[in-house]
Amino acid sequence: MSKILAIGNYNDAERKALEAQFDCLVLAREDEVAGLPQEVRETVTAVGYKGHHGFGAEQMDLLPTLGLIANYGVGYDAIDTRTASARGIKVTNTPDVLNDDVADLAIALWLMQGRELEQAATWTRAGNWASGGTYGLARKLSGGKVGVVGLGRIGREIADRLAAFKCEVHYHSRSEKETPGWTYHADPVDLAAAVDVLFVALVGGPETEGYVSKEVIAALGSRGVIVNISRGSTVDEAAMLDALEAGELAGAGLDVFVNEPDIDPRFFDLPNVVIQPHVGSATVETRAAMAALQRDNLQAFLTGADLLTPVN
Amino acid sequence: MSKILAIGNYNDAERKALEAQFDCLVLAREDEVAGLPQEVRETVTAVGYKGHHGFGAEQMDLLPTLGLIANYGVGYDAIDTRTASARGIKVTNTPDVLNDDVADLAIALWLMQGRELEQAATWTRAGNWASGGTYGLARKLSGGKVGVVGLGRIGREIADRLAAFKCEVHYHSRSEKETPGWTYHADPVDLAAAVDVLFVALVGGPETEGYVSKEVIAALGSRGVIVNISRGSTVDEAAMLDALEAGELAGAGLDVFVNEPDIDPRFFDLPNVVIQPHVGSATVETRAAMAALQRDNLQAFLTGADLLTPVN
Repeated sequence: MSKILAIGNYNDAERKALEAQFDCLVLAREDEVAGLPQEVRETVTAVGYKGHHGFGAEQMDLLPTLGLIANYGVGYDAIDTRTASARGIKVTNTPDVLNDDVADLAIALWLMQGRELEQAATWTRAGNWASGGTYGLARKLSGGKVGVVGLGRIGREIADRLAAFKCEVHYHSRSEKETPGWTYHADPVDLAAAVDVLFVALVGGPETEGYVSKEVIAALGSRGVIVNISRGSTVDEAAMLDALEAGELAGAGLDVFVNEPDIDPRFFDLPNVVIQPHVGSATVETRAAMAALQRDNLQAFLTGADLLTPVN
Repeated sequence: MSKILAIGNYNDAERKALEAQFDCLVLAREDEVAGLPQEVRETVTAVGYKGHHGFGAEQMDLLPTLGLIANYGVGYDAIDTRTASARGIKVTNTPDVLNDDVADLAIALWLMQGRELEQAATWTRAGNWASGGTYGLARKLSGGKVGVVGLGRIGREIADRLAAFKCEVHYHSRSEKETPGWTYHADPVDLAAAVDVLFVALVGGPETEGYVSKEVIAALGSRGVIVNISRGSTVDEAAMLDALEAGELAGAGLDVFVNEPDIDPRFFDLPNVVIQPHVGSATVETRAAMAALQRDNLQAFLTGADLLTPVN
C-alpha cells in the first residue's frame, strides 16, 4: 500500500481533492510526522508539502520509503533538496502557474508605494479630503529607471509589465539573457546604482541569503525603493530597515519578510513601506492551479510516469 | 497694461513661477473676482484657472477684456467653453503631460481592488498575520477581460498597460479606432456585458453625465468592477452605490466622485471600494509639467503666438 502524506495548511477544497484522488493522510505541520505510528510512516511513499518550516533529514528519517516530496509553491527552499537527492528522493514544485499573480503584485506594490495610495486612502477615510485638505504630491512612476534582480520566469514577467509603463529596464542575473534591449549588469551593486527601483525576484535558499546586501541598498540611494516578492531572506532586512529609518532609502513594497508571519515590528512604524502578508500567489484561480499541479506530480510518481516539474 | 489672473489652489512654487513670468494676481477662488476693483478687472486679459467650481458667464462678465482662459488640467468641464467661444475667448488645457500618471493610477486601482491589497495591509497591520491567521484568497487579474470606455489619450495608455498584463482588451468610443486587435463595441452596454472590469476614461461635462448608466452597470454584473479616473459625473453614482451595496457589482476603484471632496459617505462602508482623493495627476513631476504648459499658453497668448493646446 502506498500512502500520500499531505503536510501543511490545506484548505477544504484542496484536502477533499487530495483525499478523492489518493490514499491520503493530512497533517497540519511537519512536526506531527513523528507522532504517526511506525506502520503508517513505513507506507508513505510521497509527501505533498505545503509547509513553511524546514523539511529535511529529520523528517526523511521518519519516512523510510519516501520517494517524492511534491512542493506546493514555486519556492522550495523549505525542503532540503541536497539530502533528498542523496537519498534518491525526488522533489517537485509548482512553477509558472503563479508567475502572473506574483508579477501583478510586484507592480501593485511599486505603484502603491510610489503613489502613496495606502496613505492617501487612509487620509481620505479619516475625513481630511471632505474637510478641505489636499493630499500632497507623490512621485511619477511611468518612464522611470527600474531594475530586476533575478531574471527568471517571474522576473521576466515583472520586466515585461514594466516595459509597458515605458520604464528603462535594467537587470542582474547570473548570466546575460536574451531580452528586448534591457540592460544587463553583472554586479548587483552596479544595477542598484543605475536605477531607482529594485524588484527582487530571486529564488530563495542559502545561496541568495542577503543577496540584496547593505552595499546594494546603499547604491540604490535615498531615492531608491525595494520591491520584494521573492523571499525575505534575499534582502539584508536589518540593513534595509536601518536605511529606511535613516531616510537613506525612499521606501519599500514587501510581500515577504525574514521572520514571517511575526515580522519585525519596525516595519509598522514606516509609512513609506507597503506591507502584504505573503499573498503573491494568493488568488482562487492560481492556488487551484498550484494544487492541481502538485496532485499531478503525485499522480505521475504513483503511476511511474515522468514527473511534470522536478527540481532535482 | 495686461494682467493675468491666476485662480485656484496654486502651490508656492507655481505661484512664484507665475509671478516671476507675468504681471499676475492670484486668487484662491473664482468667487473672489467680484471683489476686485473695477479698474483691476478691466486690465485682466487672461485667466490661469486651477479652480474646481464652474467658471462661466458670471465670471466672464466681470472681466470685459478677457481673451484667454488657460486651464490647469486636461479636463476643462468646469469652464463654460460655449459661452467663452461666443465671446471670442480662447480656452486651453494641459493634455498629454498627465496621461502616464492617470493611467498608472487606473492600473493601481484595478490591482488594489482585485487583489484586496488595502484590506490585506490593514489586516496585517492589525496583527492578524503575526497571530497565525491567513489572509483569504483574492482574484486573479492578469489575463482577464477588460473594457475601456473612452479610448482617448488616457484610455489608450490604460489599454496599452492592460495588454502587458495579457488582458483581452475591449473598448467603446464614439467611433472605432485603429488598435492592436482590441475589440470595439458600439454600445457601452455590450462592452460591459463582454468584460469583468470597466475602466472609465471619458471626458467630463454634460454630454457624458451618467454615461456609465444603470444599464451598463447591470450588464457588468456581480463579478464586475468599475475603475473610474475620469470625472465622478461620468458614472451614475447612485446606481453604482446601489449595485455595490446589493452585491450586484463586485467592487470599484475610484479617484473621482460626484460631490468631491465631500463624497457620499456610503462609499466608506464598502470594503470592496478603493478610494483615492482625485490624485490622478498628483505627482511632483507631472504637476510641474502641467503648470509649465499652462504658463506657456499664457505666454503664447500675451505675445500673439499660436496657443499650444487650444480646445475651442
